[in-house]
Amino acid sequence: MNNKINIAIIGLGQIGIFLYNELGLKKRYIEKITGKKINIIAISAKKKDKKRRFKIDKKIFYSNPLNIFKDEKIDILFECVGLSDGISKKIIEKALKNKIHVITPNKALIAKHGDFLSSLAEKNNVNLEFEASVAGGIPILRTLKESLNTNKLSKVYGILNGTTNYILTEMENSNLPFDKVLKRAQQLGYAEPNNPKLDLNGFDAFAKVRILSALAFKNKISKNKCIMEGIEKIELKDIKIASKLNLRIKLLGISEIIDNRLFETVHPCLVKKNSYIGNVNGVMNAVITHGKPIGESVLQGEGAGPGPTSSSLLSDLISVLKNNVNKPFGLSSSKRKKIKAFNINNYTNSLYLRFEVKDKPGVLSLITNRLAKYKISIKRIIQTPDKKNIKATIVIITHKTSEINIKNCLSIFKKNKYILIPPTLIRLYS
Amino acid sequence: MNNKINIAIIGLGQIGIFLYNELGLKKRYIEKITGKKINIIAISAKKKDKKRRFKIDKKIFYSNPLNIFKDEKIDILFECVGLSDGISKKIIEKALKNKIHVITPNKALIAKHGDFLSSLAEKNNVNLEFEASVAGGIPILRTLKESLNTNKLSKVYGILNGTTNYILTEMENSNLPFDKVLKRAQQLGYAEPNNPKLDLNGFDAFAKVRILSALAFKNKISKNKCIMEGIEKIELKDIKIASKLNLRIKLLGISEIIDNRLFETVHPCLVKKNSYIGNVNGVMNAVITHGKPIGESVLQGEGAGPGPTSSSLLSDLISVLKNNVNKPFGLSSSKRKKIKAFNINNYTNSLYLRFEVKDKPGVLSLITNRLAKYKISIKRIIQTPDKKNIKATIVIITHKTSEINIKNCLSIFKKNKYILIPPTLIRLYS
Repeated sequence: MNNKINIAIIGLGQIGIFLYNELGLKKRYIEKITGKKINIIAISAKKKDKKRRFKIDKKIFYSNPLNIFKDEKIDILFECVGLSDGISKKIIEKALKNKIHVITPNKALIAKHGDFLSSLAEKNNVNLEFEASVAGGIPILRTLKESLNTNKLSKVYGILNGTTNYILTEMENSNLPFDKVLKRAQQLGYAEPNNPKLDLNGFDAFAKVRILSALAFKNKISKNKCIMEGIEKIELKDIKIASKLNLRIKLLGISEIIDNRLFETVHPCLVKKNSYIGNVNGVMNAVITHGKPIGESVLQGEGAGPGPTSSSLLSDLISVLKNNVNKPFGLSSSKRKKIKAFNINNYTNSLYLRFEVKDKPGVLSLITNRLAKYKISIKRIIQTPDKKNIKATIVIITHKTSEINIKNCLSIFKKNKYILIPPTLIRLYS
Repeated sequence: MNNKINIAIIGLGQIGIFLYNELGLKKRYIEKITGKKINIIAISAKKKDKKRRFKIDKKIFYSNPLNIFKDEKIDILFECVGLSDGISKKIIEKALKNKIHVITPNKALIAKHGDFLSSLAEKNNVNLEFEASVAGGIPILRTLKESLNTNKLSKVYGILNGTTNYILTEMENSNLPFDKVLKRAQQLGYAEPNNPKLDLNGFDAFAKVRILSALAFKNKISKNKCIMEGIEKIELKDIKIASKLNLRIKLLGISEIIDNRLFETVHPCLVKKNSYIGNVNGVMNAVITHGKPIGESVLQGEGAGPGPTSSSLLSDLISVLKNNVNKPFGLSSSKRKKIKAFNINNYTNSLYLRFEVKDKPGVLSLITNRLAKYKISIKRIIQTPDKKNIKATIVIITHKTSEINIKNCLSIFKKNKYILIPPTLIRLYS
């Protein structure tokens, strides 16, 4: 690489514009530690004249990012558009084919096309870096690739989505229902204003789980069928009951090797209030790894927002500028293996089941009998009557039971004349 | 670098012998990810025939490590002797001058001679890596050098010594005094059997603080006078009283920029039981960084023992094998600056003061009057009488006061006919 480095930034949303400004501020420092002079010579976004947090140099603005490749000699390209396909994929493909290093925080795209794009990068002898795609400012990918890489890892899990963690924390702290807290999160910029669905339904966390697995277990990005549940069904009532039981609800992403098979999941979990993970609150993310001989490691930090994301993007930039040799997934694509999927039906957990029922004699025995029939044994029952409305809330904590039983549970307890709404089911995590 | 890499290991204690075995086990994997064939061609220790955890190849054994340089062509040398000077320094110097990459977990040596040795490494265009020197398996040095390096850090602190953290945790859990728990720690291999002093008096943690500062703030390793206190004076009584106040005692290492000056310290701190740092127990270590724009980051993991240490040593090895360009301190020696020392006298904290006194009228007012004279204001007093012995324990929690007052405190409350022993003083940390 030359000593003068030409940079393009595609996408000037929250992340892109912050990065643009940071590169300006830190140009000198970057030169000091790498000996390379960086120069932003092209930027691109949909609208040239949109109001942005920082002023842009309109002379280097492109409406069509694909034109940049014709006009300019780019060394490093930042993709900050964020689509899982479409223009994001097109730009990255084109860049790699043109022997341009690519840096991106785009988890949806890496989780979907990471294998293909990493092969392409390796073939063209350039880097494809995506530290910022998982857990914002937490350097978990570099840690997996460069620091824990000789350990035999068995598990990597954690809180991987700041939006949902903020919402769950805020529901507990402010005693407000989901909808109201979601609105507040949107006002504060912690949730997408238009379509927050991908955060709320677990999709975002799941993309991160796929990427983490690939780095931790050196496998191709899995396409296995897995459990993906979000927090949309969590009610304030559940949070309050959990609190009385000294538990807290967290959306966990989990990737684990069980019996040499890969198991990946995202779902809400009840964790102990006094546990480590139970105290990672607000927009914080945390990733925990288990491995030999290293033991347990924890990394925690701000999981979202332009500041932490930009910190990770710049760490990728410096790695590229230092000519560090990096296979995108730490190991060349041809050496990464496929790992068979663990059978979801054999995944076991204790369950929290909340029933809203008519307060009639026999309802509780109806529920417990059905659970017994499916061999789900009960650890604890808390029944709270609502005398005024002749209703009751029944919470049942079960012993460990397999996922196949969980499915049964949900189908046998459909709404009927005694069970007023389908029960809420949350897995306990220990 | 050639594709066949010759390795020497000097020192076959707990760490060295574990590393020796690991290198054998992971040879193939290392070749897979780096394309380099490693070969241990020389090992050295004091005694050839000592009983060790793993069998060594006696054909490659050297009693005098300096002879290795004459006989063999070494590419990478691991120094696992662990002295701050003497043979450790001699070997590393010789290796670097011979253009041999050096990897070491030796914090005492790096804290003392890191500046000199890093210049030497840079001059000879080889790497000097020491990830394992701070916080065992936690990749904090690589994180500071490669992931957080464009952030403006203001603080890095944490629990940096597993031995003392184990002792404090075990005193609380088992209700046993310091001496007994120390013995248990020695039996379990968590404390040096012969001379545990360097762990207990804070020296070990302090060396790590010096190294962390140099990486976080890009300064030359400081030689400033600082506070260094260990846990030898912590009594079970203090741990019990702290517990009643919902506090826990932790030995913290802290490096901080205050008013553009560098402040480094190691001393026992009272932290809240429900805080994050209050729940890092046993042999675990944790490092917390504050910076912009990243915010707060936390790294936690096993801080000692051959497994985690070896994980870090191997991560250094792979970095070297990948030909990654690494200045030992992230920035070339000539560009690292000196930062002036913050005046210790201006360091402020709330204090916990425990007095053992004769239970006589006027004793409490004697103490409080003296504190008032030195403008130390009292937040809380807990007096517990011991009627049988006509004694009392008085615990005073003060408002924030500066370190100069703390020194005064200790001199004004020397043992006298009412104050039976010099008071115990522990700083509160918030």
